[in-house]
Amino acid sequence: MYLPYFFLFSILLALYPSSALVQDFCVADLSLPPTPAGYPCKKTSKVTSDDFAYHGLAAKGNTSNIISAAVTPALDGQFPGVNGLGISIVRLDLAVGGVIPLHTHPAGSELLVVIEGTICAGFVSSFENVVYLKTLNKGDIMVFPQGLVHFQINSGKTPALAFASFGTQNPGLQIIDFALFKNDFPTELVNKVTFLDVAQIKKLKGVLGGTN
Amino acid sequence: MYLPYFFLFSILLALYPSSALVQDFCVADLSLPPTPAGYPCKKTSKVTSDDFAYHGLAAKGNTSNIISAAVTPALDGQFPGVNGLGISIVRLDLAVGGVIPLHTHPAGSELLVVIEGTICAGFVSSFENVVYLKTLNKGDIMVFPQGLVHFQINSGKTPALAFASFGTQNPGLQIIDFALFKNDFPTELVNKVTFLDVAQIKKLKGVLGGTN
Amino acid sequence: MYLPYFFLFSILLALYPSSALVQDFCVADLSLPPTPAGYPCKKTSKVTSDDFAYHGLAAKGNTSNIISAAVTPALDGQFPGVNGLGISIVRLDLAVGGVIPLHTHPAGSELLVVIEGTICAGFVSSFENVVYLKTLNKGDIMVFPQGLVHFQINSGKTPALAFASFGTQNPGLQIIDFALFKNDFPTELVNKVTFLDVAQIKKLKGVLGGTN
Amino acid sequence: MYLPYFFLFSILLALYPSSALVQDFCVADLSLPPTPAGYPCKKTSKVTSDDFAYHGLAAKGNTSNIISAAVTPALDGQFPGVNGLGISIVRLDLAVGGVIPLHTHPAGSELLVVIEGTICAGFVSSFENVVYLKTLNKGDIMVFPQGLVHFQINSGKTPALAFASFGTQNPGLQIIDFALFKNDFPTELVNKVTFLDVAQIKKLKGVLGGTN
Amino acid sequence: MYLPYFFLFSILLALYPSSALVQDFCVADLSLPPTPAGYPCKKTSKVTSDDFAYHGLAAKGNTSNIISAAVTPALDGQFPGVNGLGISIVRLDLAVGGVIPLHTHPAGSELLVVIEGTICAGFVSSFENVVYLKTLNKGDIMVFPQGLVHFQINSGKTPALAFASFGTQNPGLQIIDFALFKNDFPTELVNKVTFLDVAQIKKLKGVLGGTN
Amino acid sequence: MYLPYFFLFSILLALYPSSALVQDFCVADLSLPPTPAGYPCKKTSKVTSDDFAYHGLAAKGNTSNIISAAVTPALDGQFPGVNGLGISIVRLDLAVGGVIPLHTHPAGSELLVVIEGTICAGFVSSFENVVYLKTLNKGDIMVFPQGLVHFQINSGKTPALAFASFGTQNPGLQIIDFALFKNDFPTELVNKVTFLDVAQIKKLKGVLGGTN
Repeated sequence: MYLPYFFLFSILLALYPSSALVQDFCVADLSLPPTPAGYPCKKTSKVTSDDFAYHGLAAKGNTSNIISAAVTPALDGQFPGVNGLGISIVRLDLAVGGVIPLHTHPAGSELLVVIEGTICAGFVSSFENVVYLKTLNKGDIMVFPQGLVHFQINSGKTPALAFASFGTQNPGLQIIDFALFKNDFPTELVNKVTFLDVAQIKKLKGVLGGTN
Repeated sequence: MYLPYFFLFSILLALYPSSALVQDFCVADLSLPPTPAGYPCKKTSKVTSDDFAYHGLAAKGNTSNIISAAVTPALDGQFPGVNGLGISIVRLDLAVGGVIPLHTHPAGSELLVVIEGTICAGFVSSFENVVYLKTLNKGDIMVFPQGLVHFQINSGKTPALAFASFGTQNPGLQIIDFALFKNDFPTELVNKVTFLDVAQIKKLKGVLGGTN
Repeated sequence: MYLPYFFLFSILLALYPSSALVQDFCVADLSLPPTPAGYPCKKTSKVTSDDFAYHGLAAKGNTSNIISAAVTPALDGQFPGVNGLGISIVRLDLAVGGVIPLHTHPAGSELLVVIEGTICAGFVSSFENVVYLKTLNKGDIMVFPQGLVHFQINSGKTPALAFASFGTQNPGLQIIDFALFKNDFPTELVNKVTFLDVAQIKKLKGVLGGTN
Repeated sequence: MYLPYFFLFSILLALYPSSALVQDFCVADLSLPPTPAGYPCKKTSKVTSDDFAYHGLAAKGNTSNIISAAVTPALDGQFPGVNGLGISIVRLDLAVGGVIPLHTHPAGSELLVVIEGTICAGFVSSFENVVYLKTLNKGDIMVFPQGLVHFQINSGKTPALAFASFGTQNPGLQIIDFALFKNDFPTELVNKVTFLDVAQIKKLKGVLGGTN
Repeated sequence: MYLPYFFLFSILLALYPSSALVQDFCVADLSLPPTPAGYPCKKTSKVTSDDFAYHGLAAKGNTSNIISAAVTPALDGQFPGVNGLGISIVRLDLAVGGVIPLHTHPAGSELLVVIEGTICAGFVSSFENVVYLKTLNKGDIMVFPQGLVHFQINSGKTPALAFASFGTQNPGLQIIDFALFKNDFPTELVNKVTFLDVAQIKKLKGVLGGTN
Repeated sequence: MYLPYFFLFSILLALYPSSALVQDFCVADLSLPPTPAGYPCKKTSKVTSDDFAYHGLAAKGNTSNIISAAVTPALDGQFPGVNGLGISIVRLDLAVGGVIPLHTHPAGSELLVVIEGTICAGFVSSFENVVYLKTLNKGDIMVFPQGLVHFQINSGKTPALAFASFGTQNPGLQIIDFALFKNDFPTELVNKVTFLDVAQIKKLKGVLGGTN
């Protein structure tokens, strides 16, 4: 069929005015207050390809630290293009013996893929407290359901690298040790609600910089 | 395992910059326009424990009125901390003979717990119009599905107290009598769409302050 | 039951202050940036009946064009009253031989009702690529699942009119031809990712005003 | 690019085994119990084009009745193809003077398009009870937010026809009169919760076949 | 308006056949496997008023135990009527000194109302680990966002009673101590992922019945 | 605090009976019909750690084919553990010159991370048809919004490997070429709805095994 210049292109386009149209995506305008569903959208006219890609996970994180691990995030705050799209990702580098301490993600499930090395990972179910443990090698994947405590450990002899995706733009991160010991949560209260010995609590508060 | 001062605490925290991070909760900034998912969030730096608690349901409502009942709400407008969290609550005080007139909640289901007294409650299903009635005593609970007409009556000899929770921050409230008689809904239209006698309509408009 | 003036009306109303209350609806304030859940709400005090009705689909669209068809939308951008309500609609006019070219709606399913004429419509499933075709006459309806390619053709001898509703305020619209040929998508890339001949690509880019 | 026979087609298809694949749609298997998200899906191998189209709205409903109106539904029960797709539709025929009595849809918003005639329609907001009324002519549309009482009346001199879409597969239907008078809702309770006169209640129970 | 016997009642009812109609609610059929959205629905013909009320929270729980507290649930498993309705509730009895140990609800936010006594409650935010503490008296309410660790303690001199509602039919329950010590989570792993001393771990495993 | 054997463990556990408890996760029972929200859950008593991990993405896919690429999925059908968790993943192997042809995912957004090699990727927006292109190197990520056409090409000189996550358990896959040419979509219809030349259509139908 013969289509003359420009006729076709204007038919539908003109009927769908630019303003208020683009909700294919909603690149976060981080300068505005977020809402429960995410950030307001940046004007589409200011959106470029660079908003949909991110280079920040390309470099190995610095694992020269006590847990011999690093987590490099690409959540909405770092990668505004994921705003409203229900997906995000972080990079995990674990040196030999490295540990991602026990933690939860209140807002989404996690899917881990091992790129290098060997990782021992696990989570605990609620109510029945069943422990689900797996040793994961290169190319293996594991899923950690939303809100349940889980961890990863480099159980191999070489550095490990993994990527963890989440089914939400920001799953949240609650590290159990930090919640208990790295703030001003009164020691006697921590003792009452966890049955941990006061000495244990004070010790970990001491090393994590907690007070009270 | 020995953890030197401050090392651990900065590892993960620094990787998750404060800005754009906190979506654990979203205390409503009521000064900004709401969105379909709720209000924009107040800055986390301005959030305190007081944002998550509310004292307004502590006092008995004033039941010295015609329905001998009072409803005291803690929805998003009164309790901004529930914004985005999918939950809210109201306090119901019913004096002897008190009545919460027939109404619906367009946006959420209701779960009532009786604290004192005896309450006769019920709802009507859609399509088939089955009436589900229960007499509830202290400690009993009843659920009223979203959008269906329901009511509560104090059917005992003492004042009744109950709390009603909703699975949303603001379930809406449509009192059937108010929708029909407490506005400028033209009498002849009300008659046509409800088959209520004009005299009945005018009478109730008169007492409720409706016009037209 | 006798109800004195004004007593009843103030009981519940006063307990539900106007501000922050009305989330029955959320007429879009198109002057503000949208969020993933829709636009911020216009102040309820400025909302009138006119916000909930729209006259723009009353006139037949201009089908004197190459596809002999017109689509007149009432999505959130044109009809702000649908904001947050999960529904929208467009009017389709197809002259004899008219065609709505192959397209998808990334964000919602479509339900078409034929008002006049005869329409041949179809969609293709994902993974298995099954083609589902139907010839629809006056009063017939057809549903097109979210995100799947579909089309409508006037297969009769008289003009056709249909309305297509969507289960979302703005389903998006991706016309396959426009995505391939009506922009600056490099010809060699289009060839690589679709296996279409370069000559075919250049031809359609030429007529649709695409470049590169 | 030259593509030999069959090579390409098997690459991706084989990697996506048929079983468990098709969630593009989920045609309802009405012989199985529904779940909160809809019905279980019929086997894709048994799905045909006929599952996605429906002829039941093609005929004018019988309006020779007391309300001089008819509603012909294409919800999930009648049109299993909409299961899981978030959309459904009904046909409204209103003879001269016809009325769709005051009702709500607990589960979804409604979008009405007038095909023939003139319809006076309106809804009432919750909390503040504002009445939003419009007179709609051919081609006009109006939206009725989820859960709010609304009605339609043929306010013209000729029969009226309209289609009403919903942003859900089954929005529910609660006709206020039926909920109050067309069941065994005890008269004294109706009186207490609506303030309608006992005589009025008995009269309407009488005509609608209610008891008690 | 005069309405003859039965005419009106059949108009709309007949057009909405009983089967497949009732999705106002979906009382759980606990004999069938659940789905991600809840349980399949019990046949509406077998649903009675008793499905929507529950008496199990009327009695004080037995607090003669080590934590001097009891939690009595009315989640979907105990109260099938809440299935699909997005709401549930539990009763909390705390004797003097009673404690609900540190825990999370992976699937929903919690809203607590104090009925008797004085409760000290708090939660910790993710990422920044801010502790939000409040002392709650009779009639006070507090909200605990989904997935975050929280606790309640009876900080008064008399028994405390509270009800906690959730914006979901089953929010899940992960008690941190149980997840760490009341199963076969290997001690050396617990030590690695929490930095708790082996002695502390073994001690609490011992008292909670954990192994390994 | 001293905790005697077993006392604590039974307090809360007994109050939360096993049945109907586990909705932390919902491992798919693929032998049962799916529902719009996913598959029914396998009994928790039959769930093991192996349900949460998957080894199928560990091996490089076979790229000795015409597109010099392979996609290995871990969606719900292959990895039942992701059922209800809102996440899934696939492995992409692209040999030199390899191509993932233009396609969409109707049900979810995609987040790609490049593990090896160089990938040129892009998507096209709806309505305005803007092309967003990026060249991605090792460690780079890119997001492709739900429902929009996109592609990936190995633009480097070595094999490329990437993982693509989705914010849903099965995002669907519609390959545009397959939808047009690899089925029995009548040639004349394809011509009418895409304006592709009949010769082009017949050619690609020929190589893809399409008919009609």
